[in-house]
Amino acid sequence: MGQILTLTTDFGTRDAYVAAMKGTILEIAPDLTLVDVSHEISAQDVMEAAFVLTNAVPYFPPETVHLVVVDPGVGTDRRAVALKMEDQLFVGPDNGLFALLTDELSTAQAVVLDDPTAWRTSSPSSTFHGRDIFAPAAARLAAGADLTELGSAVDPDALEHLRWARPTIVSDGIRGWIVHIDHFGNCVTNIPRSVFEAERNGDETKLYAGSAVIQGIQNAYGEVEQGEPLALFGSSGYLEIAVNAGNAAELYSIMKSDPVNIVFAPEE
Amino acid sequence: MGQILTLTTDFGTRDAYVAAMKGTILEIAPDLTLVDVSHEISAQDVMEAAFVLTNAVPYFPPETVHLVVVDPGVGTDRRAVALKMEDQLFVGPDNGLFALLTDELSTAQAVVLDDPTAWRTSSPSSTFHGRDIFAPAAARLAAGADLTELGSAVDPDALEHLRWARPTIVSDGIRGWIVHIDHFGNCVTNIPRSVFEAERNGDETKLYAGSAVIQGIQNAYGEVEQGEPLALFGSSGYLEIAVNAGNAAELYSIMKSDPVNIVFAPEE
Amino acid sequence: MGQILTLTTDFGTRDAYVAAMKGTILEIAPDLTLVDVSHEISAQDVMEAAFVLTNAVPYFPPETVHLVVVDPGVGTDRRAVALKMEDQLFVGPDNGLFALLTDELSTAQAVVLDDPTAWRTSSPSSTFHGRDIFAPAAARLAAGADLTELGSAVDPDALEHLRWARPTIVSDGIRGWIVHIDHFGNCVTNIPRSVFEAERNGDETKLYAGSAVIQGIQNAYGEVEQGEPLALFGSSGYLEIAVNAGNAAELYSIMKSDPVNIVFAPEE
Repeated sequence: MGQILTLTTDFGTRDAYVAAMKGTILEIAPDLTLVDVSHEISAQDVMEAAFVLTNAVPYFPPETVHLVVVDPGVGTDRRAVALKMEDQLFVGPDNGLFALLTDELSTAQAVVLDDPTAWRTSSPSSTFHGRDIFAPAAARLAAGADLTELGSAVDPDALEHLRWARPTIVSDGIRGWIVHIDHFGNCVTNIPRSVFEAERNGDETKLYAGSAVIQGIQNAYGEVEQGEPLALFGSSGYLEIAVNAGNAAELYSIMKSDPVNIVFAPEE
Repeated sequence: MGQILTLTTDFGTRDAYVAAMKGTILEIAPDLTLVDVSHEISAQDVMEAAFVLTNAVPYFPPETVHLVVVDPGVGTDRRAVALKMEDQLFVGPDNGLFALLTDELSTAQAVVLDDPTAWRTSSPSSTFHGRDIFAPAAARLAAGADLTELGSAVDPDALEHLRWARPTIVSDGIRGWIVHIDHFGNCVTNIPRSVFEAERNGDETKLYAGSAVIQGIQNAYGEVEQGEPLALFGSSGYLEIAVNAGNAAELYSIMKSDPVNIVFAPEE
Repeated sequence: MGQILTLTTDFGTRDAYVAAMKGTILEIAPDLTLVDVSHEISAQDVMEAAFVLTNAVPYFPPETVHLVVVDPGVGTDRRAVALKMEDQLFVGPDNGLFALLTDELSTAQAVVLDDPTAWRTSSPSSTFHGRDIFAPAAARLAAGADLTELGSAVDPDALEHLRWARPTIVSDGIRGWIVHIDHFGNCVTNIPRSVFEAERNGDETKLYAGSAVIQGIQNAYGEVEQGEPLALFGSSGYLEIAVNAGNAAELYSIMKSDPVNIVFAPEE
């Protein structure tokens, strides 16, 4: 009772893809509560999915299962995995989707989904592992199966990281990019607070993104006038560019994947 | 069993915002049935949210809890409230969201959500009361808490109204505006049947909106030819502009917030 | 426990239409699990709804009830029906929505929803049978009612077909059209494998759609280079035009309803 399974995909909501996964899940575990996180992840954008996931996970109770299918490598030899991190469970392709979480959380256990008896069918579609491999695995976990019933144990530290998605440290600052633009036009960068603080060292900060030039880092929207831009760390710990009571992406022509440059200068 | 909680927001479905609210809710009340009304309310559009809500409420059973978060004043001193109206419950900011309902229904009871022990955290985010204050309050009500467990009683009549959103009576008619354009292009005005009937007094009616000029009020789409425009009162009791088997917004270039003019002339 | 009801409509998710149906359903059958298949069917597009439905149905367990409301004929004398096909149940207007399934599956039983005591109200809205007739019928079935409690039995073979939506056989091949473009830009035609195989007879195949000219039929995306187009039969058994790791609709300017021409030539 009350067991929760969340879904995050890049499938959109126009087709029956998500419903096919949900039917497969409910056939295995009829009493689950299903919660959609998002099905509007940009196509095959692993980093965006990883970011959106980090914003959902902290608000779900222990034993929640998070099914994440953003899978540009479907049909290649990328691995399908399930993980237990702290007290929640995760299922999806091993392509870095969980790396933002594994960097923060302790990963107790991981398996590769290599046991075909836990799949929906022993001859899965070559293009839709979401339905045929990941959904049944997630449903079995939610129904109480142990990770080890789904496949072979693997070293959690050997899972894919998102090293390519980390910001670059340069002589006078940090070079990053826009990972996600939210519904309100807030522009999330790939620059975590830890990296920023380590480089900053008490220096003055100038941030460049689109047509915006922002001085300093604020703690809250209200620290600037309405309509003015600001840079702040969002609740997920990543640097965001926002406008107090406005849409930063529109006002400063910032698009997903745009570069973000931070320049440090010593305080005078 | 079977307890329902509905959600109406302007958060969109691309981000994890709605999921963060749902996780928070289900941690408190695991057995709820969650129903999305809409997450596509125009950004910070209290009047549109109020209208969409009136179209959902009559179809839900007693004890349903409606969580509504369209909150342009988050972080200001606008109040957070919970209400009991007839046999349903409502939670959201006190900014007029519930005014279209309170004008029609008897409001038995209202409280301000000023008891931090009922929040998700005693130091809520300054920008996301949906997750930290409203969602837990709604979940507690759905789990059986009494309104008075959430905060201090307030006079229901002292809640915000949407007086600015009412139509204006002028010498020869009524001036209103387009509150909402639905998925089919039907254009809903802010003119309720009661106001219209009071002013009309048996006169002939001419309605102007976008490039449409419509004579008289119809009772059903079928009273005009296919492709022809008509004005009628929708099931929610507001005057709508529609086209029989067509898209009124597209055909007559009517946009949200456009003015609507009704001119009365004595029957000859 | 665990009883599932799916919803497929062209109502969009901006308005309260879907929520009004769900409230109506849950008032009758509070313990149902509701699953959205899609609410983004193109307006009044019966053939697209029928296609999307065929992609969901095989993945749901026995006794699932599928509520489908794409209803261009609402308010006319088109019939409202409920069907039992194999071990699942279907409710919606009799306009061909279920024809792609009835052509494949054996239809055991069908009724016309002509018993007003099973409706939400004996005076249903003339424009919203989804809420007033179809939703309560589906809820009653999900709650265990027999088909015959909803209305009069009809001959399942007398239900509407989608004959107008079938491809045309011409002297040198097949003429069809694009029924659906999915979230990934894959373009689904109205040409089923059975028709294709019957006409092909071992001949070479050339397919024309938008600016694409595709030779032969493939079995999997990986059989062509990345970025190259291919034609293949999707899991639902209809011919699709796709691009390996690309968006066929964008790359070849293919739009919904565009013609698709297949030309056969004897192998030399």
